Amino acid sequence: MSTPLTPIPNISKPVYKRIVIVGGGFAGLKLAQKLSHTGYQVVLLDKNNYHMFQPLLYQVATAALPPDAVSFPLRRAFHKTPNVIFRMAVVQQIKKEENLLLTNLGTLSYDYLILSQGASTNYFGNANVHKFSAPMKSTSEALYIRNKIISNYERAVNIADPEERKPIMNVVIVGGGATGVELAGSIAELRNKVLPKDYPQLSFQNMRVILIEAGPCLLAGLKEKSRDKALEYLQKLGVEVMLHTMVTDYDGFTVQLKDKPSIKTVTLLWAAGIKANTLEGITEDQKAPNGRLLVNEFNQLKGSENIFVVGDQCVLIDEKYPKGHPQVAQVAIQQASNLANNLKYELKGKPWKPFKYRDLGSMATVGKSMAVVDLPFVSFRGFFAWFVWLFVHLMAILGVRNKLEILLTWAWKYLSFDPSLRLLIRPRYVKEFKRKWMTEEPDYEI
Amino acid sequence: MSTPLTPIPNISKPVYKRIVIVGGGFAGLKLAQKLSHTGYQVVLLDKNNYHMFQPLLYQVATAALPPDAVSFPLRRAFHKTPNVIFRMAVVQQIKKEENLLLTNLGTLSYDYLILSQGASTNYFGNANVHKFSAPMKSTSEALYIRNKIISNYERAVNIADPEERKPIMNVVIVGGGATGVELAGSIAELRNKVLPKDYPQLSFQNMRVILIEAGPCLLAGLKEKSRDKALEYLQKLGVEVMLHTMVTDYDGFTVQLKDKPSIKTVTLLWAAGIKANTLEGITEDQKAPNGRLLVNEFNQLKGSENIFVVGDQCVLIDEKYPKGHPQVAQVAIQQASNLANNLKYELKGKPWKPFKYRDLGSMATVGKSMAVVDLPFVSFRGFFAWFVWLFVHLMAILGVRNKLEILLTWAWKYLSFDPSLRLLIRPRYVKEFKRKWMTEEPDYEI
Repeated sequence: MSTPLTPIPNISKPVYKRIVIVGGGFAGLKLAQKLSHTGYQVVLLDKNNYHMFQPLLYQVATAALPPDAVSFPLRRAFHKTPNVIFRMAVVQQIKKEENLLLTNLGTLSYDYLILSQGASTNYFGNANVHKFSAPMKSTSEALYIRNKIISNYERAVNIADPEERKPIMNVVIVGGGATGVELAGSIAELRNKVLPKDYPQLSFQNMRVILIEAGPCLLAGLKEKSRDKALEYLQKLGVEVMLHTMVTDYDGFTVQLKDKPSIKTVTLLWAAGIKANTLEGITEDQKAPNGRLLVNEFNQLKGSENIFVVGDQCVLIDEKYPKGHPQVAQVAIQQASNLANNLKYELKGKPWKPFKYRDLGSMATVGKSMAVVDLPFVSFRGFFAWFVWLFVHLMAILGVRNKLEILLTWAWKYLSFDPSLRLLIRPRYVKEFKRKWMTEEPDYEI
Repeated sequence: MSTPLTPIPNISKPVYKRIVIVGGGFAGLKLAQKLSHTGYQVVLLDKNNYHMFQPLLYQVATAALPPDAVSFPLRRAFHKTPNVIFRMAVVQQIKKEENLLLTNLGTLSYDYLILSQGASTNYFGNANVHKFSAPMKSTSEALYIRNKIISNYERAVNIADPEERKPIMNVVIVGGGATGVELAGSIAELRNKVLPKDYPQLSFQNMRVILIEAGPCLLAGLKEKSRDKALEYLQKLGVEVMLHTMVTDYDGFTVQLKDKPSIKTVTLLWAAGIKANTLEGITEDQKAPNGRLLVNEFNQLKGSENIFVVGDQCVLIDEKYPKGHPQVAQVAIQQASNLANNLKYELKGKPWKPFKYRDLGSMATVGKSMAVVDLPFVSFRGFFAWFVWLFVHLMAILGVRNKLEILLTWAWKYLSFDPSLRLLIRPRYVKEFKRKWMTEEPDYEI
């Protein structure tokens, strides 16, 4: 498409240069916010019209939070910042020589281009796993999991033979990172406390919740004591944790494991890894072997003057992090912040500062009153850690209404242990006319 | 399918007879609740796993409430009532002679069958309107409207020519009943207060909100003074109300009107009428000419001993209502209540009581601080009516959590006038694998 995308410059201040940001995740949003009320024209592009708070996405998948609680309309964040323009667009290609970006809406020229497109699910080349497992990187994928799990029990309740029910009731989660651990804990809690009330006819002792990890431990980024405690919490909830275990194949019914007996389940949740997103126009020499885009200490893309990459999508190698920084929200936010400052220094003719990561710590929650928190100088576990986890996540999420909604929902869940979100809301397909939510969906993949 | 559906009788009391209720709307839910803890086995069937509070559905369509706020999991309502069994099932046919119901899950025998399947959108035989307009009778249809409206403005913002933008920005609503009036008021408020902040590049003076009604007045069931006031409120919000106006055709772009100039819009919301649902096995002589199923004063289906129909699906003709009762929630609830009482009298050998409708009044809201309320002996309008409307709806909705969530959302909207729900959350279609939310959807229409 060659029609130019015209971000109507409805701006009072004089515009020096145009910065185009691709992706409204933690990094992209932070950049656009810090660059508002500056002399730049900032164009933020995202394929969705909302920012999504990924750390709580597993609660959407397990019917504990509604999708709107973890999503925030991007346009709403820029009501009072006329130099920031948002467009819902799918980015297709960079033409580096012409400083031009091709999107499904038209072409857009840039002075500075910042890529913050994050990462997607990595199936490590296993086509069957890709086909039959359920990933959890987007709101619609989380809702798919919610609907899938609820459908399973609606199905199981009509099956007379308990043996035949088991594969429909079992849930297998692959990946022992924070997402896998939090999903497993949350699903075990559903099994222990909620589902037996909804389905008194089913015996939930027959439902297995299995967490599979290829490596030797869960939560590899955390301290050993925290890792052990997380494992203990999961086992307390009745999660079967299988370490040193590799998934080799899955056909929608049976999970094949390397050197171990297979497991029967219709529900395989895949949280085993991510791979950096990329874009046509990025050359192979600009990528690390694992696919992350190579940047220098200013987050400048290798071999490019005016293209930057931040967050999960890039890899910045320094002395302290010879393999690059961990792909977590904190790194994305700090890189975005540093880059925004540098772009502001540029306007004042001041020198740029290199990126330095300040590790603020990590945390994960396993279930009610059970969490592990590693801060730089202190580390703790249990009820207080859980409370800190709740507080930190509540403060981090955007928007007062979202905070209030989540606080209310959590308080309700804590008091009643009965989340009210076990709803199977699906688009209906009218055969005759094929009317559906997807009708006007741009033609791209997840 | 001939496998029997076996509602495992996990019941302590002796079971005398089985009552099957089809549909978990206002009537079906009321019946199941009133028949819990009785000697009957009650099987409640619905195609969804939730009860939906239809009076607030227009707020889902206009991004003012999230879908989970107006939906309540049906299983949750029957945690402590072992004689009530819920199944998510699509009912296909009645075999009256054998007292058998055919469903997508198998066959089910009944002693008493109660139909409370409600009504669906009536396009009055206009295939084009059916094809291109958006109805609003289910949660997924309301979400379709929300997504459609938001997509329109994301589209419009990329169109340079204001003339070309107009059909994308206009919204036409057909039907001057409560649904049409509430939708029109709500969309006009979005246009006046919310959308201009999200899309500063668009001039919303160019967006028309048009409400079309074939008859001579809006809200035909209300008193004249209330009807006039509602019209005045809508006009104050900038809704163009067209009375005595018939839609004759629609091709997705142009609404054709009888004897009037056509209107260009890509968004036609259809709230012009409903038709009673029916079921294979119901004979033509059991239906009124308008399709509603004929029942006597005990809601007994014409020509059937043990089949009952309640709510929107039936028509009960008595002296005071020679054309039948209005198809509103109050009638459904009162009929359900009367029938449940009669079925309880049956157990005690007491005589049945005929249904008598107590009109508790009607109300409708047009926008912030603007509503009309007609009670049997008093009628009022304005801020107090709006407050009464809020209170009545808040009290009527099922579940403390839903009440709290709605209260919070309304309070937030009132204070900020900025609903946070302008989210385009749509299932993504992975071309390669065709994975989507619909995968396991039973094969039926809306």
